[in-house]
Amino acid sequence: MTTPTSPPQSSRLKRTDSVGDDWVQFFATHDAPQNYKEKREKMHSFAEEHFKKQTKVVLITSGGTAVPMESRTVRFIDNFSSGTRGAASAEYFLSEGYAVIFLFRHKSLEPYMRHFSRHSFLDMLQIDSETDNSQIITVDQTKAPNMLELLKSYQTVKTSKRLLSVEYVFLQEYLYLLRAAAEALHFAGSKAMFYLAAAVSDFYIPGQDMPEHKIQSSDGPPQISLCKVPKMLAPLVRHWATKAFVTSFKLETDKDLLLKKARQALIKFNHQVVIANILEDRRRQVTIVTQDKHFTISLTEEELSHEADIEEHIVKKLTEQHAQFITENGNGST
Amino acid sequence: MTTPTSPPQSSRLKRTDSVGDDWVQFFATHDAPQNYKEKREKMHSFAEEHFKKQTKVVLITSGGTAVPMESRTVRFIDNFSSGTRGAASAEYFLSEGYAVIFLFRHKSLEPYMRHFSRHSFLDMLQIDSETDNSQIITVDQTKAPNMLELLKSYQTVKTSKRLLSVEYVFLQEYLYLLRAAAEALHFAGSKAMFYLAAAVSDFYIPGQDMPEHKIQSSDGPPQISLCKVPKMLAPLVRHWATKAFVTSFKLETDKDLLLKKARQALIKFNHQVVIANILEDRRRQVTIVTQDKHFTISLTEEELSHEADIEEHIVKKLTEQHAQFITENGNGST
Repeated sequence: MTTPTSPPQSSRLKRTDSVGDDWVQFFATHDAPQNYKEKREKMHSFAEEHFKKQTKVVLITSGGTAVPMESRTVRFIDNFSSGTRGAASAEYFLSEGYAVIFLFRHKSLEPYMRHFSRHSFLDMLQIDSETDNSQIITVDQTKAPNMLELLKSYQTVKTSKRLLSVEYVFLQEYLYLLRAAAEALHFAGSKAMFYLAAAVSDFYIPGQDMPEHKIQSSDGPPQISLCKVPKMLAPLVRHWATKAFVTSFKLETDKDLLLKKARQALIKFNHQVVIANILEDRRRQVTIVTQDKHFTISLTEEELSHEADIEEHIVKKLTEQHAQFITENGNGST
Repeated sequence: MTTPTSPPQSSRLKRTDSVGDDWVQFFATHDAPQNYKEKREKMHSFAEEHFKKQTKVVLITSGGTAVPMESRTVRFIDNFSSGTRGAASAEYFLSEGYAVIFLFRHKSLEPYMRHFSRHSFLDMLQIDSETDNSQIITVDQTKAPNMLELLKSYQTVKTSKRLLSVEYVFLQEYLYLLRAAAEALHFAGSKAMFYLAAAVSDFYIPGQDMPEHKIQSSDGPPQISLCKVPKMLAPLVRHWATKAFVTSFKLETDKDLLLKKARQALIKFNHQVVIANILEDRRRQVTIVTQDKHFTISLTEEELSHEADIEEHIVKKLTEQHAQFITENGNGST
C-alpha cells in the first residue's frame, strides 16, 4: 500500500499489470475528450491550492456514464443514476471541512442545487412592486422553508472555493477525467480520498464496431456486441493514487450476491472500503465493507420520516476512518 | 382524412391494419405504467375544459425515451435529446393562445424553466437584511436580465391553466401516454394538433428476453437482440385522432437520406407535416415537408447572433397551416 511507486506520468506507459492492462489499451484507442485539457488543469490547480493549505481533498464521482452506440451519437446505453448519493455526500464532506472535486454526469444532481427542481424554482419566485415603479423579484420563503439556510451554506462554500464541479456525459470522458483527477491528487498522498459513487457502465461498444450514421430501422433490428469496460480501480490504486484512501461502491439488485461481490472487489483491487447497496433500499441502508470487517448503517423510522440523508452517516464514518488512515500511513505525499 | 371512424375505445381491439398491427401486440404484452390512470384522467379533464372554451390544443411530445435492458432496471438504451425543440415550441404555442399538453421526458428541458440551469439559479440569488432583522432573498436581476419578463409569461400561463406537463421516462410510458393523450384530444377534432418532437427509440428489448437482475459482468459481454418499436403514427392517424392536424419529426445525421425519408413517412402514415432536420444544424435550419410541397426555414446570421429560437418560425408556420386545415376540414369533432 505504502511502497513508493514511479510517478503517475511514467506509469501510463507501464504495460503489465496482474489484474489486466486493458485500461492501457482503452486510453491508447480512445482520444481525449473535448475540453479535457482545460478540465485537467482546473483540477490540478484546485488540488495544488488545497494541498498547500493542508486541506483534505475528496474526489467524488457521481451519476451514470453514457456509452455511444454510433460515432455521431444519437443513441447511447445508459445507467440508471440520479446522482443523489454523490450530491448529498458532497454537502456532508464540505461541512466536514474537505475540499471536494465533484466529477458528475451532466444533468445529474448537484450539491445544494439537488434540493430544488427547476420547476419549483420558478414557483417560489414572486414579483414585488417597489414605490419607485421598479419591480423586484423575491423568494417566497413560505414555499421554500430551507432556502435561506441552504443558500448560506452554498455561498460559504463558494467563497472558500472548496468545491470544484467538473461535468462529463460519456464513459470515455469520465475515464479520462478520473485519471486526470487521480494524477492531480497524487501529491496529496494519504490526505486524498476517492469516493467513487458514479454508476460506471460495465460494457461499451468499441469504436471500430460503431456505425458512423444513425442505425436505420429499415436495416432490421441490429445485434449489438458489447465489450467490458476496464476496471479503473486497478490502475487507480496501483499507479495513479497509490497512497490515497479509496472508497468504491457496489450496487446490486440481488441481495444474495452483494456481500460476496463487495468482498471480491476488496481482494482484487486491494483498496480501503466498498460501500455495498441494494437498488431498492439504497436510500435507507448500506453496508460498509473494509479489509477486515463489515457493518451496516440503516436509517431509523424517525430519520426516514424526516427525510434524513443516509449520506450524513456514511460520510461521518468515512471521515473517521480516513483520519485513522492518515495517522497510520503518515501525512506524507510522494 | 375526415371519414368518420369508430370511437377510439373499440378501435383498440381492431386487429388488422395495412401498416401493421404491431402496436396492438405492444399494448397487449406491456402493462400500463405506474400512475397511468391518474395522468390519463388529468389529460382528459384538461382537453375537455379547453374543448368547451373552443381553445385550440396541441400535444407536444419532447425528449428521448429510455428502453430498459433489465426488468428491474439499472441499465437502459437512450436517445440523445435535450428537449430544446419541444420546450421552446411550447412557449411559442402558448403565446399563440394554444393550450398545451407537454408530454416530456423526465429531466429534459421544460418551457420557461429551460432558460435557467439549477446552478445559475442559486448564483442569481442574494440575501438582503431588512431593518427588522429578518432576511429576504432577492433575485439579482443584473445576473438574470430576462427573469422578470419570463416570470411574467410563466405566471400568466399558470393562471390561465393552459399548460399541462406530463412526465415519462420509459418508452412504454411514453406510448401509453401518447395513446391516452390522443384519445383525450379525439373530441377536439381538427382543433387538435399533434407536434411529435420526442426522439422515440426505434428499438426495444422484449420483456421475455430481459434478465430480472442486473447483467453480471462476470457472465461475459452480453449480446443484445433488439426489436423494432411499433410506429404509433399509424394508429394515431387512423384510429385515435383521425381528424387532428399531425406533425412528426425526422432527425437524421445523413443529409442525403433526409428528404427522401420525410416524404416516405408522409406517404406511409398520411398525416399533414414532417419537420425534417439534420443533427448538426437542427438549431438553425429545418425543412417543413407537407403532402404537396416542402420549404426550408433558416435563421439569419443576425438571428443566430441574438440566439433566436428557430421554433418561433416553425410554430408560426404551423399555426397558419393549422388554421387553414380547420377551415378546410370543419371545426367539427365526432
